[in-house]
Amino acid sequence: MAVQKPSVPKGTRDFSPVEMVKRNFIFDTIKEVFKRFGYLPIETPSMENLTTLMGKYGEEGDKLLFKVLNSGDYLSKVKSDLTKAESTKLTSEISEKGLRYDLTVPFARFVVQHLNEITFPFKRYQIQPVWRADRPQKGRYREFYQCDVDVIGSNSLLNEVELIQIIDQIFQKLNVNAEIKLNNRKILLGIAETINAKDKFIEFTVALDKWDKIGSEGVKNELIKSGFSESQIEDIFSVINVIDQDNKHKILFLKRMLIDSETGLRGIEEVETVLNYFETLPLNIELELDLTLARGLNYYTGAIFEVKAKDVAMGSLCGGGRYDDLTGVFGLKDVSGIGISFGADRIYDVMEQLNIFPNEIVASTKVMFVNFGEKEEKYCLPLLQKLRENGINSEIFPDSAKIKKQMTYANNKNIPFVILVGESEMEKGILTLKDMINGDQSEMIFEELLQKLS
Amino acid sequence: MAVQKPSVPKGTRDFSPVEMVKRNFIFDTIKEVFKRFGYLPIETPSMENLTTLMGKYGEEGDKLLFKVLNSGDYLSKVKSDLTKAESTKLTSEISEKGLRYDLTVPFARFVVQHLNEITFPFKRYQIQPVWRADRPQKGRYREFYQCDVDVIGSNSLLNEVELIQIIDQIFQKLNVNAEIKLNNRKILLGIAETINAKDKFIEFTVALDKWDKIGSEGVKNELIKSGFSESQIEDIFSVINVIDQDNKHKILFLKRMLIDSETGLRGIEEVETVLNYFETLPLNIELELDLTLARGLNYYTGAIFEVKAKDVAMGSLCGGGRYDDLTGVFGLKDVSGIGISFGADRIYDVMEQLNIFPNEIVASTKVMFVNFGEKEEKYCLPLLQKLRENGINSEIFPDSAKIKKQMTYANNKNIPFVILVGESEMEKGILTLKDMINGDQSEMIFEELLQKLS
Repeated sequence: MAVQKPSVPKGTRDFSPVEMVKRNFIFDTIKEVFKRFGYLPIETPSMENLTTLMGKYGEEGDKLLFKVLNSGDYLSKVKSDLTKAESTKLTSEISEKGLRYDLTVPFARFVVQHLNEITFPFKRYQIQPVWRADRPQKGRYREFYQCDVDVIGSNSLLNEVELIQIIDQIFQKLNVNAEIKLNNRKILLGIAETINAKDKFIEFTVALDKWDKIGSEGVKNELIKSGFSESQIEDIFSVINVIDQDNKHKILFLKRMLIDSETGLRGIEEVETVLNYFETLPLNIELELDLTLARGLNYYTGAIFEVKAKDVAMGSLCGGGRYDDLTGVFGLKDVSGIGISFGADRIYDVMEQLNIFPNEIVASTKVMFVNFGEKEEKYCLPLLQKLRENGINSEIFPDSAKIKKQMTYANNKNIPFVILVGESEMEKGILTLKDMINGDQSEMIFEELLQKLS
Repeated sequence: MAVQKPSVPKGTRDFSPVEMVKRNFIFDTIKEVFKRFGYLPIETPSMENLTTLMGKYGEEGDKLLFKVLNSGDYLSKVKSDLTKAESTKLTSEISEKGLRYDLTVPFARFVVQHLNEITFPFKRYQIQPVWRADRPQKGRYREFYQCDVDVIGSNSLLNEVELIQIIDQIFQKLNVNAEIKLNNRKILLGIAETINAKDKFIEFTVALDKWDKIGSEGVKNELIKSGFSESQIEDIFSVINVIDQDNKHKILFLKRMLIDSETGLRGIEEVETVLNYFETLPLNIELELDLTLARGLNYYTGAIFEVKAKDVAMGSLCGGGRYDDLTGVFGLKDVSGIGISFGADRIYDVMEQLNIFPNEIVASTKVMFVNFGEKEEKYCLPLLQKLRENGINSEIFPDSAKIKKQMTYANNKNIPFVILVGESEMEKGILTLKDMINGDQSEMIFEELLQKLS
């Protein structure tokens, strides 16, 4: 067979042991907090039927789905001179499955499919990769992990409060300095109503959503293009102008502005209720009512969130919100839920950039026995077994290779201790323990070693 | 939008929280033992280039690959009246990526691609799903997890010994009664040499491999079909006839039979060396030299293993062996390694059938506060926060729903304790703790509760 130059598909990555250990630190932290709040794990298949996925992520999203070829002789169906319609039809004949695009649609499908097994409110978390045929670029991959936590079947605003606490605790445990931006789609709808632009609500939120990227002039131009009048735009900017005030002042401003919008006032009340909880439940993280936050997805109907790192320029690390009809398309109407999604890859990039992964997570093997030959190996193996029985990750170099090679191996693997047992140690019934960080060597009996490493 | 009946693709599955907790018990046990022996995790992308995958799993394997459609307007290339060759070519034009079929080929690709970052011997483990377009049936899925552990870049037979220890410890921790079948491909090659059938080695091992399924008559017929002579078949059956003897007798028999085969004698010596290790390192699991064990895959060149459950009829739960040129096709020649793969889904099925999952793993949330209303909720939330800060997985029902509904929720979620705090408890500064298993209720102060649940 010809030699093949090894490579991975564009936008995908291998993860080395060092990267895996760091990634697992993030996943384990997230999982631990999810469980602490009573959320339980589920998993769904990597492939979903295209009927489940198509039309759920907008036209652009449909294009970004990875489609999987049917097995079998599908191409015998191919005919000549395909029109565009025929080509689309052909694709559906040769492909009926696609790779998961996010965890939200599969979750909605799961809830309806397993309705009889579920007790509501259903608190679930899900940590799995998703795939998007997006143009790869720095920080954007075609395969990446999402960590979703949702509760469905409860209107209680206590869920909003708990998700904020979850965000707070996760970033505190990861030692990432972050801030939460909070808004409410009912407030945005109230603003649209108040300026008589309810029919242009989507255009309004889409423009607003770009505030971070294109600035005030950009948003203004977008709004003009969408047909907003001068005075409508002026009103919208009066909202943006309170951007630097504190949450209380923003709420006061909104209460005056949205006095005639029932929906708007409800949104304000929801935000106030949520914020009030934190007067007796202090947060470490900053929580800001950000009236320019809109979130791209139109299924949100209440609270919306976004989390950003404060010390690194990076897209949002976490986002989500409340939805009132996610399961409707699968036949379960009017079930409200709320959920957020953590982007593990971006969190990794932030932590790597700030160099804040704890040092102690990198070492997985705690101690290595140097292999001096058959006799010494035979002496060491039962000791090695005892260390392992005592929960100590340990190994022996498999060959009696040159000491330098064995030491390099231990060094490269970040193993903090090696054990040397040669003729003289065997005679005396002791071991020599070498600290790989400071180079210190000391002799001890096995019981001392066990105590030191436990 | 029309309502869609929710479903998943054929051969794939959702996992509920109860299933996930059990699956994670298996994965966590396996990972813990892998790490205990100094193996480190890696991950590779779900999609690999088809050039990496094709031709590695035989003709049948190529057919079972899930291929992913390229994005873009690939179908404009479609022409009329496709011949079979054109159809194959077209597939390669519209699809360049496939889903991972196993973890072995991606591992070989990884090793060669990251050669400069790796210190040998490289001890890695990898736990990820794989996909095969096989006909789904009981116990056979199109998406399933493999748990692979390999060491590459070491000829030492100590690696064989440690993999057997790993198998032993994993099944002991899982409480699965299992046995290891061990053989060596060099012995099988020695047999083929001895009976002058070296040119029919593959046919010989393929027939032998079916022994379990089709019995002695079946194997005989297969061998006749492959052109083996009466006397060759008689010699082969003399090997099978020692099936019920112990390891020592089998080795004695082989030493006599294979006296003229250098390769065969080397295989016997390897097996003896491995078995000798266990005279001073006792195993819990049964380890049997099984001369009918052949393993389907032809890249094995030394020790081969298979693990079966003793109390349930089920395919092998784990298998693997030594290979001498896995990375050759990617340009790295003559690097020996050895690895085994645990089938988590089959282990799950065995444990489920025997009902041996530990009870205590099912409960994830330890305690739930009943929600009696706004005032009580406000009183409970800081206590809930304290429990969580102390590492206790706990929750509060998000609404002040009917008590019966809240209790049903706790019951269905296997929550072992609920806390009741109403008017009278608030006045007295105490809590009522209800044991959901025996129904007992007792009053206590928060510090007592904390102690009881920690």
